[in-house]
Amino acid sequence: MIHSLTLSDVLADHARSRPQVTAVVDGDVRLTYPELDARVTRLADALAGRGVAAGDRVMWLGQNSYAVLELLLACSRLGAVLCPANWRQSRDELRFVLSDLAPRVVVWEPSDQAAELADEATWVRAGGAYEELVAGGSPREFPQVDDAEPVLALYTAAFAGRPCAALLSSAALVAHSATLLVVRQMEPGFTFLNDGPLFHVGTMMFCLATLQIGGTNVFTPAFDAEEVCRLVDAERVTQAFLFGPMIDAVAAANAGGKYDLSSLRFVAHSAEWDDMITVDDSPWCRSKMGGYGQTEVGGMLTFLGLAEGGAGFAGRPSPLVQVRILDPEGVEVPAGEVGEICARGKTLFSGYFARPDLNEVKSRYGWHHTGDLGRREPDGTITFIGPRLRMIKSGAENVYPAEVERALKTHPAVADAAVIGVPDPSWHQAVKAVVVLRPDAAASAEDLVAHVRGELAAYKRPREVVFADAIPKQGFTPDYDALDAAYGGGNYPGA
Amino acid sequence: MIHSLTLSDVLADHARSRPQVTAVVDGDVRLTYPELDARVTRLADALAGRGVAAGDRVMWLGQNSYAVLELLLACSRLGAVLCPANWRQSRDELRFVLSDLAPRVVVWEPSDQAAELADEATWVRAGGAYEELVAGGSPREFPQVDDAEPVLALYTAAFAGRPCAALLSSAALVAHSATLLVVRQMEPGFTFLNDGPLFHVGTMMFCLATLQIGGTNVFTPAFDAEEVCRLVDAERVTQAFLFGPMIDAVAAANAGGKYDLSSLRFVAHSAEWDDMITVDDSPWCRSKMGGYGQTEVGGMLTFLGLAEGGAGFAGRPSPLVQVRILDPEGVEVPAGEVGEICARGKTLFSGYFARPDLNEVKSRYGWHHTGDLGRREPDGTITFIGPRLRMIKSGAENVYPAEVERALKTHPAVADAAVIGVPDPSWHQAVKAVVVLRPDAAASAEDLVAHVRGELAAYKRPREVVFADAIPKQGFTPDYDALDAAYGGGNYPGA
Repeated sequence: MIHSLTLSDVLADHARSRPQVTAVVDGDVRLTYPELDARVTRLADALAGRGVAAGDRVMWLGQNSYAVLELLLACSRLGAVLCPANWRQSRDELRFVLSDLAPRVVVWEPSDQAAELADEATWVRAGGAYEELVAGGSPREFPQVDDAEPVLALYTAAFAGRPCAALLSSAALVAHSATLLVVRQMEPGFTFLNDGPLFHVGTMMFCLATLQIGGTNVFTPAFDAEEVCRLVDAERVTQAFLFGPMIDAVAAANAGGKYDLSSLRFVAHSAEWDDMITVDDSPWCRSKMGGYGQTEVGGMLTFLGLAEGGAGFAGRPSPLVQVRILDPEGVEVPAGEVGEICARGKTLFSGYFARPDLNEVKSRYGWHHTGDLGRREPDGTITFIGPRLRMIKSGAENVYPAEVERALKTHPAVADAAVIGVPDPSWHQAVKAVVVLRPDAAASAEDLVAHVRGELAAYKRPREVVFADAIPKQGFTPDYDALDAAYGGGNYPGA
Repeated sequence: MIHSLTLSDVLADHARSRPQVTAVVDGDVRLTYPELDARVTRLADALAGRGVAAGDRVMWLGQNSYAVLELLLACSRLGAVLCPANWRQSRDELRFVLSDLAPRVVVWEPSDQAAELADEATWVRAGGAYEELVAGGSPREFPQVDDAEPVLALYTAAFAGRPCAALLSSAALVAHSATLLVVRQMEPGFTFLNDGPLFHVGTMMFCLATLQIGGTNVFTPAFDAEEVCRLVDAERVTQAFLFGPMIDAVAAANAGGKYDLSSLRFVAHSAEWDDMITVDDSPWCRSKMGGYGQTEVGGMLTFLGLAEGGAGFAGRPSPLVQVRILDPEGVEVPAGEVGEICARGKTLFSGYFARPDLNEVKSRYGWHHTGDLGRREPDGTITFIGPRLRMIKSGAENVYPAEVERALKTHPAVADAAVIGVPDPSWHQAVKAVVVLRPDAAASAEDLVAHVRGELAAYKRPREVVFADAIPKQGFTPDYDALDAAYGGGNYPGA
């Protein structure tokens, strides 16, 4: 256990190494690291008093709050798991999550959806009741916890119609924080404004990296452009959770220069924005932000900042993982070919809570299967193609609809496209494309097939193209079941 | 094993992600990552053919070479351990190390010391015979290796008169590299000149961090100021292993501006030097370089760059460790008090090879005991006091000679000082100081005792002060056995 470093351990060290540093700001709440450490100890003791033991789950059901970080750290101290649940969920979705995760304690901000699900015995109201809970705990020592144990549960991708809780260990979260420290070049003094939802890994990962480097986490319930401006100015914030339209909104809210946003070291965006902030030159900010990621890898798997000028628009793997592009039999595909993005390494999750069969499938051949398709470019960088929702088997060949759809969409006349497999007497399945043309644009089926042949191997070209007014969707992706029903799809491998 | 990331895995990923990047430069040898990966596979196969199995040791006995990195990576691929041995050792020292480590294969550059120890059956000459070894191996797959297994052995601190091999796992080395990537803000394209000895963690740690970020390692047999200039210019080196007098020598060798050293991003040193290079503003270079470290923690435990303006001159802990200042009973001492610097975390070693008793002592109470004394300052930063070679027990109190010696040396009249414990009927032991005054300086015993009382708790003050012409030394530290014999020391706790 001499190698173990839990989130609780990180906090315990900061309490000693950074006694004067502000760890947390949230409205009137301001806590130094020793104060946060002392509160987390009391909270852990109080949770233990409510029956929370190692391996048990605790749920936060509310908007962003310092309490999310305290609960996470207290769970780490106990070897328990915190789930910050999506407070925007419907009552039905929430009922599922509660029965799935079976939390021992729920700390909640009252809401219409949650009200009738609340159980007086195990639910604690955020605010006063939560503060009473903390105050009721006693300072004491806790046994050491193995950092390979899960500490955070985040609900993610729906498999079989319902979301699953991805379990992340302290070891994975600490490792992921280290990669952000590297790529974002975070230093002591880093101040992060948690204005995106903490039930999502995109905000949580920067909250935890800020903890790791001993910086300051500022919390605000949810994104509000004016409030972001006020907090950046007041707390000298280094970075907030912002992208595209959020940046525009913040720039607009500060149009008169009412607030001083110069402490913000962030990506260039518009002339107006760049004048307000300090354009940062770390790899994370220097070119385009981001890369490819998902909750199951702790956040980011690849970074654009590690592949400046690279061909692949997902960048290169983080320094603490390996990535392989594998075919369905677990064999690496050559550069230039599409396969599933698979990974191993320090930042990976510990499987989904209570999904042994799914976990076995997702980790087959000793690699985490992201469920997404990608390709190595000749320079070794990675391109993300799209989700591996379906695979078509035509002859002996595997054809991923997402790859063919991508090729179709590069044709100037194509507004949208979806690809299915239809039964074929000779080839088992044949590729069929459903295409929506742009208004006033024209292209024949032959034009589109020829276009795909110019982009992909011949066997991937559609044998048939039909035109439609729209593609049925599930969220952002085609609704393949509806497409199969409408256009004669079937004979899928394994079906 | 989905979380495992060995050095071999890091290489395997770079071979895919960075196919065009130069991994290694050494004289005429230039290898891209795929070329290095292919050679390492063949070398691993060839070593296996010579009987090297998981857990076995391989030794490099020579100056710096690309072969050190290749052997380390091949050992990682096999689950074996590489020891780059100190080629400057005497024949007697080398004989001990060989019998202690019992390497299955030794790759060596012929030397007078090693010549009569060489065993034709297991020793391979660097150069031609080594290249034949590599060429004789075959490409193949290797089973996955757990990154918690040791991969590097570095001989370090002599306990009981003989050095011990500190074993470092891939997990520890990868974690340590991540901390250097953070503090040194290393980016892709980083080029490190290995001009310090690779048998020492100070050079090895930057070699491995450069590997981790997919940079270029340039090797030169040993430090030569002119050759450093030439290589920095020719290879656009970002950083070399340089400090104080080495920097002066390089600046002097380039006095006429013969070489372009502007690619070097390094610490400011002198007006002349700063003009030749690019002064770097990463935390590692911005203030004073370094911190506190030892081989047993993978290199650096604390960094000055994480504590700019801090009171303690060892800085703050690395982001991947915890540090505690403990008393001999394993209890944390309050800030301001001296105790032993102890640590846990991701970068820590896996114990000494074949030293179970010592390992138990060094990891007592679940913390790695560095053997060094330190103190928390009020701002949480750490001051390194000196090695914990002896402890005096006076009454119920622990007195560390290094702490009293440090206090004595802050008196302007004191040139050197050593402190021993002498038997005392009332207090078990009493503190006795042996002091060397500066030429032409004067101070009485009473002056010095009063001075120490102003610096430390009363019980730590010497009961007796004697003056001497010199302090007997073992290396840089007082020879306490000789001092005890000469000045009546004894009754040490545990003796």
